[in-house]
Amino acid sequence: MARTFEAGGRRYVALAPELFASTAAKTAHGVIAYSSDETVAVIDPDLAGKSVRDVLPYLERDIPVVSNVAEALRFRPTSLLVGVAPPGGKLPVAWRSEILRAIDAGLEIVSGLHELLEEDPEISKRATAAGVRLWDVRVPPKVELFSGAAFALESRIVLTVGSDCASGKMTASLELTRAAMAGGTRAIFVPTGQTGIMIAGWGIAVDRVIADFISGAAEALVVEGARRRGELLFVEGQGSINHPAFAGVTLGLLYGSAPDALILVHEAGRRTINGFDQIPLLSLHELIGLYEELCAAVKPAKVAGIALNTRKLAEADARRAIEAARSETGLPVDDVVRFGPQALYAGVAPKVRKTAVKSSVR
Amino acid sequence: MARTFEAGGRRYVALAPELFASTAAKTAHGVIAYSSDETVAVIDPDLAGKSVRDVLPYLERDIPVVSNVAEALRFRPTSLLVGVAPPGGKLPVAWRSEILRAIDAGLEIVSGLHELLEEDPEISKRATAAGVRLWDVRVPPKVELFSGAAFALESRIVLTVGSDCASGKMTASLELTRAAMAGGTRAIFVPTGQTGIMIAGWGIAVDRVIADFISGAAEALVVEGARRRGELLFVEGQGSINHPAFAGVTLGLLYGSAPDALILVHEAGRRTINGFDQIPLLSLHELIGLYEELCAAVKPAKVAGIALNTRKLAEADARRAIEAARSETGLPVDDVVRFGPQALYAGVAPKVRKTAVKSSVR
Repeated sequence: MARTFEAGGRRYVALAPELFASTAAKTAHGVIAYSSDETVAVIDPDLAGKSVRDVLPYLERDIPVVSNVAEALRFRPTSLLVGVAPPGGKLPVAWRSEILRAIDAGLEIVSGLHELLEEDPEISKRATAAGVRLWDVRVPPKVELFSGAAFALESRIVLTVGSDCASGKMTASLELTRAAMAGGTRAIFVPTGQTGIMIAGWGIAVDRVIADFISGAAEALVVEGARRRGELLFVEGQGSINHPAFAGVTLGLLYGSAPDALILVHEAGRRTINGFDQIPLLSLHELIGLYEELCAAVKPAKVAGIALNTRKLAEADARRAIEAARSETGLPVDDVVRFGPQALYAGVAPKVRKTAVKSSVR
Repeated sequence: MARTFEAGGRRYVALAPELFASTAAKTAHGVIAYSSDETVAVIDPDLAGKSVRDVLPYLERDIPVVSNVAEALRFRPTSLLVGVAPPGGKLPVAWRSEILRAIDAGLEIVSGLHELLEEDPEISKRATAAGVRLWDVRVPPKVELFSGAAFALESRIVLTVGSDCASGKMTASLELTRAAMAGGTRAIFVPTGQTGIMIAGWGIAVDRVIADFISGAAEALVVEGARRRGELLFVEGQGSINHPAFAGVTLGLLYGSAPDALILVHEAGRRTINGFDQIPLLSLHELIGLYEELCAAVKPAKVAGIALNTRKLAEADARRAIEAARSETGLPVDDVVRFGPQALYAGVAPKVRKTAVKSSVR
């Protein structure tokens, strides 16, 4: 199925010029937080001299931020990570010179952009000359159309769905996987996007396949999760059902991954769709209704809980927001990063625990 | 924007071995019914000796059906049309020899398969040697992400949406375009799939773009329709909102084309999703509710009428089915092929007619 790449053993420099503090750098943030590959430096001239902890305390890492590739080399990196996911996935002109410098210094380049490094004449030529590997994470394998095989899997499948993009769906899936493993359940995180693939070392960027094959790619991923003997599969969600640009991917993934349960992910305080100020987010109540109505039309699944991302709130406000969401919906609600995934996990855990389990993050 | 190809002047042989009578040959049926390129013969050994009218009376064409390319040559074709759209778009092995014979006979090859002729070493080599053109209709142009530009167009946009795939959405859009033109409105058919592109000579196969760009491709198409000064744009719909394999494309098109009104298309008597017997079609009432609910979350649009495809019913049964759908939904309902598009068109026609109009089918 999916192309697989080893994770573990890399020493990353994460390239995120002028953007490391923003949501746009979610690739860098995700890899720093969850990958077994170590990040040894971050490149952002605006923040040079600080540490990751200074900029984003929740990441709890003392990784230095530097101005450029030349400065990062003293941390003995093996790989340059393109740490930003700009909409449309194009390579900003300003990053090109840094990437070329990294190639000349012998670093592997890891990128999740739509615009492929291997198809860039200048970059691919320099990489060949320097003998370095280009890993375009988003290049999909050949996939088949959705067949219905996903309906027959014995694994319990839990998909995160969102009120918007970049709200914390991958993080929720990863944290729930950890919680399941901690409880002795054989859980597997199923990566559907570039950052998830970098973290887990396998997966398919479902937004990069040919449109007719979104559901087929999602199906291939849960079939692979089952083949890896996952008792519980936490599938990384994408986009939102009312995102005007990305909802096609959201719905193809919703049907193709054939979930048994959904976890709704929302960033507290966000009011409008990312990039479209004229489109309000749906309420939690509306989102639950719409996602469940769509699932009911193919394979029924209910929202089992809400992962509320309260990163931008003070702790007291966060607790109030969680309580408000709980009373609006009657569902388990928690911030899985701030307060841990256990409360939310209780809502999706298998009712009967198997004995003699073995766990695996990836 | 989209790659454009002249339509008109071709003399097609439509290749549909063993399948011409079935819905799988909808590409051939659509081109025969609506293209300004003439079809001079159909290849289907099972039906050789009959005419298209014998096989499919509603097409009303005395085109001969023959066994193979060799027999078709006496009708002086210019082009071979791959007239079948198999799920997944792969080239059946058995068709290869006929395609190669057509190439050797100097025919242009026109194909809407996902599997591209130009990427097939044997076919592309033979075509180069014979000096014939390969037109892979589904190859998309470079498109951008959805930007919101579609929200600002002055054209009135009408999208067909379906209860399933292959139910008559393209046909309904084409017939409504004709009705509008007959009424003096500057209407344009906006093609989103292979057959529509063959008919109109422009368009983008939105199921063939990279998944993240479905809505962007749809937006590019309506922007182009407006640029062509379409007062009324009839956008060809794709798939169905609860088709497990294709709904991602359906939703991306629903948002990206930013419709002002929807026409729901349903084939009378169909009960389950094409290829998935375990998934029932939604009722007309449920479909209207779901499509309108999704539109309301991005740009509101209502279902203005129902195009009921009654091809498989006797006329009296067809009239009863239309009346039943009308009383179930309270909307205008008609079979636009059997009884003409005028009744349905009345529901979507611009309220104020412009004077000094000029019409264009493409």
